[in-house]
Amino acid sequence: MSSPVTIKDIAKALGISASTVSRALKDHPDISTDTKDAVNELAKRLHYKPNAVALSLKNSKTNTIGVIIPELVHYFFSSVISGIEDVAYDAGYNVMICQSNEKYDREIINAQALLSNRVEGALISISKQTKDFNHLQMIEESGIPMVFFDRIPEGFDSDSVIIDDKLAAYNAVCHLIDSGCRRIAHLAAPSTLGIGKCRLDGYKEALQKHGLPYLEEYVIVADSFELAAIATRNLIQLPIPPDGIFTVNDLTAVGAMKSLQKMGIAIPEKVAIMGFSAGNFSDITTPTLSSVDQHGYEMGVKAASALLERIENKRNGAGETFYVDTNLVIRESTKKI
Amino acid sequence: MSSPVTIKDIAKALGISASTVSRALKDHPDISTDTKDAVNELAKRLHYKPNAVALSLKNSKTNTIGVIIPELVHYFFSSVISGIEDVAYDAGYNVMICQSNEKYDREIINAQALLSNRVEGALISISKQTKDFNHLQMIEESGIPMVFFDRIPEGFDSDSVIIDDKLAAYNAVCHLIDSGCRRIAHLAAPSTLGIGKCRLDGYKEALQKHGLPYLEEYVIVADSFELAAIATRNLIQLPIPPDGIFTVNDLTAVGAMKSLQKMGIAIPEKVAIMGFSAGNFSDITTPTLSSVDQHGYEMGVKAASALLERIENKRNGAGETFYVDTNLVIRESTKKI
Repeated sequence: MSSPVTIKDIAKALGISASTVSRALKDHPDISTDTKDAVNELAKRLHYKPNAVALSLKNSKTNTIGVIIPELVHYFFSSVISGIEDVAYDAGYNVMICQSNEKYDREIINAQALLSNRVEGALISISKQTKDFNHLQMIEESGIPMVFFDRIPEGFDSDSVIIDDKLAAYNAVCHLIDSGCRRIAHLAAPSTLGIGKCRLDGYKEALQKHGLPYLEEYVIVADSFELAAIATRNLIQLPIPPDGIFTVNDLTAVGAMKSLQKMGIAIPEKVAIMGFSAGNFSDITTPTLSSVDQHGYEMGVKAASALLERIENKRNGAGETFYVDTNLVIRESTKKI
Repeated sequence: MSSPVTIKDIAKALGISASTVSRALKDHPDISTDTKDAVNELAKRLHYKPNAVALSLKNSKTNTIGVIIPELVHYFFSSVISGIEDVAYDAGYNVMICQSNEKYDREIINAQALLSNRVEGALISISKQTKDFNHLQMIEESGIPMVFFDRIPEGFDSDSVIIDDKLAAYNAVCHLIDSGCRRIAHLAAPSTLGIGKCRLDGYKEALQKHGLPYLEEYVIVADSFELAAIATRNLIQLPIPPDGIFTVNDLTAVGAMKSLQKMGIAIPEKVAIMGFSAGNFSDITTPTLSSVDQHGYEMGVKAASALLERIENKRNGAGETFYVDTNLVIRESTKKI
């Protein structure tokens, strides 16, 4: 048997594009009557049949999970997505990702898109700008199960998957202390961000536990590469400069390292550096960077698994909070214990 | 006027979850008759009305553009997505991203998902495994406009957006020569990959143009961090080692730099390093990495603009190929001219 006639064959025979043929067959208003007649006549003559798979899809369930995520460029979030996808595809679901790009307006459009695309469930991490949650209530009211991960809104009875930021920060600072640091500074995120406050609390608790004083001049809000460089210069110019720096994320740690190197200060001998969220560049820097591994992949696996249980009615009842473990990855920027 | 009654209010009043209320209202088979009766009665008593926005979305156009992309973790692809999104959201479209994760099987599921989610158009970069294009023909036959970017399949009459890989590689190697290198090695991708062949051709042409010999022992297939470390060690052990290395991507360049540093070889004084595709870690390494900027953002802008022209019938006719410019970013890993 010869292979079935396709839109491409018709297009080739008539010397027009496949897209024009497709539209002609659908009686699209932009296509001329002459073209439509020619296409329909040839389609009939060649016994053209529309693709069966495409037709059957039109009325089926979407089997799609929607994801709303702040920023794809972060290694952490792309790891979460890998975990989500491995669980979802194994279970026969497709994954569609919407990026809010940390913008509240886009997150609203993303939420509407998940609805209009009839996803079976949604995995959501909110943007830094999001303070109002009507768009998420809209999803909830549509009966679409939601699971939140990493950045969680308040007031929803949904499952959440997070790490214990305070404990992870506590462990990171304890490592600096155990390896000999006694004057530890912290480059922090604004405390309005939940994770910023939790990580600062963990830092404070580790100092207190080891009988080290908490010094205000050692804590500077600086959560970017550029701000870290300035903050580190200021720290080094203090009458008693720190011998260790714990940073709220890895990019900040790299900024601090570059700044120390410019000043000729040896890492980790004079100042040790501890980052957070072992990103894809923590083993590329010189020296390589000690950091907290947030296990993004495991977070994605747990979030997708929890969502599938809701979609498939395997678990009902009140929303639960699941914690994903973290661990320290010790590389060259901190001293060996 | 008091605020309208929501599913949450009903859930709270009855002590059950919002999701259960939503399903009860939709007569879902998993919900008991008792619960359904209680929910419906209370909904009626409280004059509950379903969310109007959610309802209106059910029958509307999706206004969604679908993207199929090999790997989100690459800075290049996440830059492309930013460009796509900025154009699409400005024009009132939402963007949904599917990641093939370089797997042919997932790419097929992604294509089916775009169809069943009724996207208005598709932006596609194919996976390394994809050699068969039935899934893309299915999209074409559905009359959904497609634009391909960066990794292009053969045999489609669609728009394409690419860079001139050969020219970019030629320029990169010319920079090494202009800055004094005379024995330039190349860490290459397998030549079965289109970009691998183009970049190798550009390397050869630059040597020829400057009267430098092409030496087979200077070209090694090594396109990852790990392979680069091994290949670089072998290059340095040659009787006449290279004084410059051009790598097919940035991660390979970092592998080469780490390997040279371990051997105590000064960069760029003894061996200069030139990468490709200025990633997000090319200014994080020590020394910072000279590289080719592929302008991923501009590629995304161009691809989305071309697609919108097709969706909105502003441009018809045969598929066109658009080239996005590249330029060299000179940092510390190559010598000043």
